[in-house]
Amino acid sequence: MTSSDLYPVSRVAAVQEAAAKAGLDALLLTPGPDLRYVSGYEAKPSERLTCLVVPAAGEAYLVVPRLELPSAQASPAARLGLEFVAWDETDDPYAMAAARLGKAAKVGLADRMWAMASLRFRAALPGAEQVLAGSVLRELRMRKSPAEVAALREAGEAIDSVHRRVPEFLRAGRTEREVAADLAEAIRAAGHKTVDFVIVASGPSGASPHHDVSDRVIEAGDPVVVDIGGTFPSGYCSDSTRTYCVGEPSAEFAAYYEVLRQAQDAACAAVRPGVSCESIDAAARDLIAEAGYGDYFVHRTGHGIGMETHEEPYIVSGNGEPMEPGFAFSVEPGIYLPGRHGARIEDILVCTETGGERLNNTSRELVIV
Amino acid sequence: MTSSDLYPVSRVAAVQEAAAKAGLDALLLTPGPDLRYVSGYEAKPSERLTCLVVPAAGEAYLVVPRLELPSAQASPAARLGLEFVAWDETDDPYAMAAARLGKAAKVGLADRMWAMASLRFRAALPGAEQVLAGSVLRELRMRKSPAEVAALREAGEAIDSVHRRVPEFLRAGRTEREVAADLAEAIRAAGHKTVDFVIVASGPSGASPHHDVSDRVIEAGDPVVVDIGGTFPSGYCSDSTRTYCVGEPSAEFAAYYEVLRQAQDAACAAVRPGVSCESIDAAARDLIAEAGYGDYFVHRTGHGIGMETHEEPYIVSGNGEPMEPGFAFSVEPGIYLPGRHGARIEDILVCTETGGERLNNTSRELVIV
Repeated sequence: MTSSDLYPVSRVAAVQEAAAKAGLDALLLTPGPDLRYVSGYEAKPSERLTCLVVPAAGEAYLVVPRLELPSAQASPAARLGLEFVAWDETDDPYAMAAARLGKAAKVGLADRMWAMASLRFRAALPGAEQVLAGSVLRELRMRKSPAEVAALREAGEAIDSVHRRVPEFLRAGRTEREVAADLAEAIRAAGHKTVDFVIVASGPSGASPHHDVSDRVIEAGDPVVVDIGGTFPSGYCSDSTRTYCVGEPSAEFAAYYEVLRQAQDAACAAVRPGVSCESIDAAARDLIAEAGYGDYFVHRTGHGIGMETHEEPYIVSGNGEPMEPGFAFSVEPGIYLPGRHGARIEDILVCTETGGERLNNTSRELVIV
Repeated sequence: MTSSDLYPVSRVAAVQEAAAKAGLDALLLTPGPDLRYVSGYEAKPSERLTCLVVPAAGEAYLVVPRLELPSAQASPAARLGLEFVAWDETDDPYAMAAARLGKAAKVGLADRMWAMASLRFRAALPGAEQVLAGSVLRELRMRKSPAEVAALREAGEAIDSVHRRVPEFLRAGRTEREVAADLAEAIRAAGHKTVDFVIVASGPSGASPHHDVSDRVIEAGDPVVVDIGGTFPSGYCSDSTRTYCVGEPSAEFAAYYEVLRQAQDAACAAVRPGVSCESIDAAARDLIAEAGYGDYFVHRTGHGIGMETHEEPYIVSGNGEPMEPGFAFSVEPGIYLPGRHGARIEDILVCTETGGERLNNTSRELVIV
């Protein structure tokens, strides 16, 4: 993949068209996934304003601190033929961005724009209603191009290779934190640019879906939820969960793990164009509820993934959005017994013309280490 | 340092008093440094709302996704005796936060609150003017407590130990990226929880103040700017720059490096209670300008530092704010010759009753490797 595949020059025009259709005068894209998606420029969020202004009509321009101008010019954004509007340390970049834009009745803010910037833009464009740029960009970002799917596949294979190494690291007597440090190193070694999260949730820690790590010493017989992910140099993310057991599991755990495995399979099998996001959630949830564990599956079934670990579409009750080819998302039901233990199985899938393709392919059987 | 030292329970009351004085009905603190400063809770920003609501009068409460409730309860925030308001996946947490707050005419948003949240709060609290929580919190956050200074000192000593290792890594024939990878590893090994930035800017790269790294091969005779920093487990940040030379420098470079060294010294010597932030900028800038390099010092002299690498106060022309004991900030003038090379020297200082104390103490002479 080259950056021309991932960030085609044609994308700016597509964004302008979508903005015009949505009745927006401009998108204001500060550093984060929205900016990177449109321009390929991976600027760090900071108190100094960097903002790609994409008017619905006219030329886009990048407002950038002068000391970051060389970085911007060296980024994929330079291919877009944008004008770079550099500002000096004592300039007001919000006024500069606004003056150039002229009159605007409605603008879309990058979903992650800091309040520090959105409130300044409100003052600099007092007549403009602010909405989320995501309301426009979601339509593009949800539908992954073949290059984007390839980038997600590359990240998926890398995180699979880390899961295959878990038996090297996980054993009784070590702390969750020690295992997590080894995993972080392995995630980097597998080619990720950043380690975004490492959950090692052993025994009772596993009953908390978003447990991170602790100094708990892992014991023989513990189920251990390992949920790991990072960002590849491409900018695309990995995210996969497997549940392990340190020695033989209890009969009770083995029983509900099998329910979970079947539920995750059922949800993956339900994926195809036209079905609603919530129906995929229901496919997993119904099976878990029928087996009597409904109260212990306390979160949605999944989230979209791309340049963000969590993005649209969300696989959750209430989301009637129909699946389309190119949607990429997690399927990750879990069962959590408060104070005791828990389990989760997570794959990233891409919806194809005919069904769901899993981008994670390590064994979903309980791995005994 | 314990979390009680860094995040005293009394801080919530101090924040409430400051909010009331500023005429704000409440602060809305989503994950980020503002939330952590007030509560000690280090939640990850995400599309699921976590928000500490601190009303000017009444009890503060933490709105939190149910699946993160155990993490919140295990965090230092639990010491504050707050109520935790957990929401389920299909609830509207903005409506829940707003309903409980009741009527509000003016609210302060965490400076880094995502637009995704600020626009939802605008809808949920339609009558409330939004301003930055920073307008209130800056008064507290700028004045570091002894525990905070100790945390910055600990981080400063760690990053100094990494600078002392630079000669192990930096030599002709290696790329900037290779050197940076070693430095990142060393930053972690020195006790940082995260590596926040690693700038290795050799030869012409050094002429761009915010150059990151590239695949440029370092050559004999190159000056190399190394600007590194990370976050300690305490939550406090390190940030220090030294300029190295691979072999003997040119006479021209050695001459302007000496100007820079004197300018950085002069700015550090200018620090004491009562002097304006901009006068410290001027102390460095005037000396550089007198030597004929004024056009090549293209950025402010420094930034505050604490739980963020960049926070108030900024050491910049136009900032008349008087220094007070407890202010912590960088002093980092630079000289950059476009297309050729550059140099920067950066220390973190704390203003004491009598002057400025440097928290970085490696040699400021040009280090020849």
